[in-house]
Amino acid sequence: MSGRLVIAGLGPGSEALVTPEVSAVLAEATDVVGYIPYVARVAPRRGLTLHPSDNRVELDRARHALEMACEGRSVVVVSSGDPGVFAMAAAVFEAVESGPPAWRELDIRVLPGITAMLAAAARVGAPLGHDFCAINLSDNLKPWALIEKRLRLAAEADFAMAFYNPRSKARPEGFARALRLLQQTCGDDRPVIFARAVSTPDEEVRVVPLDRCLPEMADMRTVVIVGASTTRVIARAGAPFVYTPRSAVA
Amino acid sequence: MSGRLVIAGLGPGSEALVTPEVSAVLAEATDVVGYIPYVARVAPRRGLTLHPSDNRVELDRARHALEMACEGRSVVVVSSGDPGVFAMAAAVFEAVESGPPAWRELDIRVLPGITAMLAAAARVGAPLGHDFCAINLSDNLKPWALIEKRLRLAAEADFAMAFYNPRSKARPEGFARALRLLQQTCGDDRPVIFARAVSTPDEEVRVVPLDRCLPEMADMRTVVIVGASTTRVIARAGAPFVYTPRSAVA
Repeated sequence: MSGRLVIAGLGPGSEALVTPEVSAVLAEATDVVGYIPYVARVAPRRGLTLHPSDNRVELDRARHALEMACEGRSVVVVSSGDPGVFAMAAAVFEAVESGPPAWRELDIRVLPGITAMLAAAARVGAPLGHDFCAINLSDNLKPWALIEKRLRLAAEADFAMAFYNPRSKARPEGFARALRLLQQTCGDDRPVIFARAVSTPDEEVRVVPLDRCLPEMADMRTVVIVGASTTRVIARAGAPFVYTPRSAVA
Repeated sequence: MSGRLVIAGLGPGSEALVTPEVSAVLAEATDVVGYIPYVARVAPRRGLTLHPSDNRVELDRARHALEMACEGRSVVVVSSGDPGVFAMAAAVFEAVESGPPAWRELDIRVLPGITAMLAAAARVGAPLGHDFCAINLSDNLKPWALIEKRLRLAAEADFAMAFYNPRSKARPEGFARALRLLQQTCGDDRPVIFARAVSTPDEEVRVVPLDRCLPEMADMRTVVIVGASTTRVIARAGAPFVYTPRSAVA
């Protein structure tokens, strides 16, 4: 029997956001591979081996999963959110391309999930309702100059922007620089959404005008969404709605 | 009893991609509102009234849903994909902002879904595995010059790009112009993914080098993904894998 490898998105945290397709694949897997907190979301059962691993070992983890699939096992690599958005799918295909020829003939499938920016956007309204971009603010794998160039061009294009991995203990300065750049480029009252751990018990969401944003408002569990010039805030008794209208004037 | 309004994403087509959260809300709704083919995906049952409506009446549909919620009903507006990405959520908040004050105090929630670009990306690998943007190519609600400006800036930023609504019978020319612009700006062999009706029985996915793309390869049911300069194609016996590596050099 030949093995297979599935790279599955668990969504942002709540079980109510895991697709039935992903649940079905997990129910049939022999091995689940992934970063410790994501593997911890999979219930142990007879016949299933869990392989949790630490952060920053994505390529090793991918190779281990590919090796097990080659041995005929039914392997699921789990990611939070969507596996194709700043997550494990790209790492697996990097490993495939640089690995033995047999790996590229494996049955490899990617199952999409609810990525963090969509869950975050939904919490406040529809800030990504018009053209937008998604940028990983970590400079572990790309130079900071490239991030800054993309931020400038995204502001010029008037995209709404979603930032993944905005800030970590190891990289406290990048997000501060990104905020300064945006504060110089966009209007003071541009709405910014800080959405932390959406759909988990730790969820915190706030909407802050750009000129009052502080770097400390984000950490590695936060997705940051910056509105476009057309983005609107609807004040109300409860938390405000934030949305970007469908129409735009040049 | 006060009403509520939920704007729910049904995902790209397959029932296996509808989140349990959305299924639960549909099971308790009194009224479901939406574009005809999306409402047709909701099973009729006692106590549920279906309100299908035609395309291009998004604001009327949103107002109707808000009025029913004000009357105490439990209303779900259904969108395909994610309601916050070029779909009904923005239209509902446009109606809220321009409507009577009571509307903004309603209990309104958005439930995310698997948006078309993520389902399409998953089918071929991980073409959105690095920074990317999403652009609606319809010029019904924005001038074509703005679309063209965004395409140029997105190419300069070296984003992978996902295009929604690339081409319709009423707008046959726009996508042809977009392709010409990209063919002049990006390399000839930049991989382009045409993903039509992903996860439905009509699914068709192909990967075509940019210089061999034709406007006729897309229609209104197609999402088009254009790789970044770093995007890789892994040839194999089956359909190729396409992915964008996590790392990038300026």
